[in-house]
Amino acid sequence: MPAPALDFWFDLASTYSYPAAMRIRPLASEAGVTVRFRPFLLGAIFKEQGWDTSPFNLFPAKGRYMWRDLERICADMGLPFRRPEPFPQASLLAARVALVGLGDTWGEEFCCAVFRAEFAEGRQIGDRQILGAILAGLKVEPTATLAAAQGDDIKAKLRSETAEAQRLGIFGAPSFVTADGELFWGNDRLENALVWATRSQ
Amino acid sequence: MPAPALDFWFDLASTYSYPAAMRIRPLASEAGVTVRFRPFLLGAIFKEQGWDTSPFNLFPAKGRYMWRDLERICADMGLPFRRPEPFPQASLLAARVALVGLGDTWGEEFCCAVFRAEFAEGRQIGDRQILGAILAGLKVEPTATLAAAQGDDIKAKLRSETAEAQRLGIFGAPSFVTADGELFWGNDRLENALVWATRSQ
Repeated sequence: MPAPALDFWFDLASTYSYPAAMRIRPLASEAGVTVRFRPFLLGAIFKEQGWDTSPFNLFPAKGRYMWRDLERICADMGLPFRRPEPFPQASLLAARVALVGLGDTWGEEFCCAVFRAEFAEGRQIGDRQILGAILAGLKVEPTATLAAAQGDDIKAKLRSETAEAQRLGIFGAPSFVTADGELFWGNDRLENALVWATRSQ
Repeated sequence: MPAPALDFWFDLASTYSYPAAMRIRPLASEAGVTVRFRPFLLGAIFKEQGWDTSPFNLFPAKGRYMWRDLERICADMGLPFRRPEPFPQASLLAARVALVGLGDTWGEEFCCAVFRAEFAEGRQIGDRQILGAILAGLKVEPTATLAAAQGDDIKAKLRSETAEAQRLGIFGAPSFVTADGELFWGNDRLENALVWATRSQ
């Protein structure tokens, strides 16, 4: 019998996806669950609701709460945290690079490194130089990889992944979807998603 | 030293406030925390964001998720669940009655009974007859109590409680606020709020 599976849907600009990315691999491994990283563009889904930026910017009380809450969560986990400016960061190019890496061996490490650069170091993840440095740190050749990330097949793949997220009913990030289609939204629901994934196996 | 305190802010029409109300008293008692029930009107806060109904109605993917999620949570807790129609229920009169009861001895039981009527039995909690039957079930005289709930002092109290919720940065329900002003939003953050309340004592 194959290991139970869980899809981890996230946007590289999503705040709560940072702690989720940092903890999903050890937790899933402990639970005997195989995780698949599925980056997508949350902004495209927000746009359909008539939002041109994050709800954390549109609704100030919600935004203030989120920053404080994220700070608490990172402190509890011992994760460094620095608020990126501007928020949200432009995650399009990073998501495309992630898809190149997820088709190779270094995709998950790249995503985690992008989250650290953005939310622990406050770097601009929309910047090619920053992404190039992250790739170099993973011993991945930056120039060819950034070129591949701009190829038509990767662009189409990111569009189809975002469409698939929407089809699954995803409206925020992080979201977790089990093999039988159960959706769990939010970093704090990761444990429930892992339990569901093992139970429904 | 007095017991650590936690304020439980909720709207009687709020879906996730149902499981929160059902579990907060035993969990707080176990943690040695004193809980104060603070009903308010979430609709008044939504209005300031330009919303004329619940975001679960305005944003269909979010609404679909919430109903499924609530069903899962109730199943896990062994709580009966029935989706109220219409949603949200009119919670104004029930909130006023709750304030009368919270100034007496039966407020918490009344709130729990309203949540059960609404989310376990699918009853109309805006209906005076239903509220009267709930009061009678608690051995509280319905006619005088419903009249007191419509008094100017109770109306003013509910307005000032709602203003206080807003001042505290509350934008959703349930929310939990510790004595030192930390805000936690959502049924699934109750445990964190209780830990914070005891730690910050």
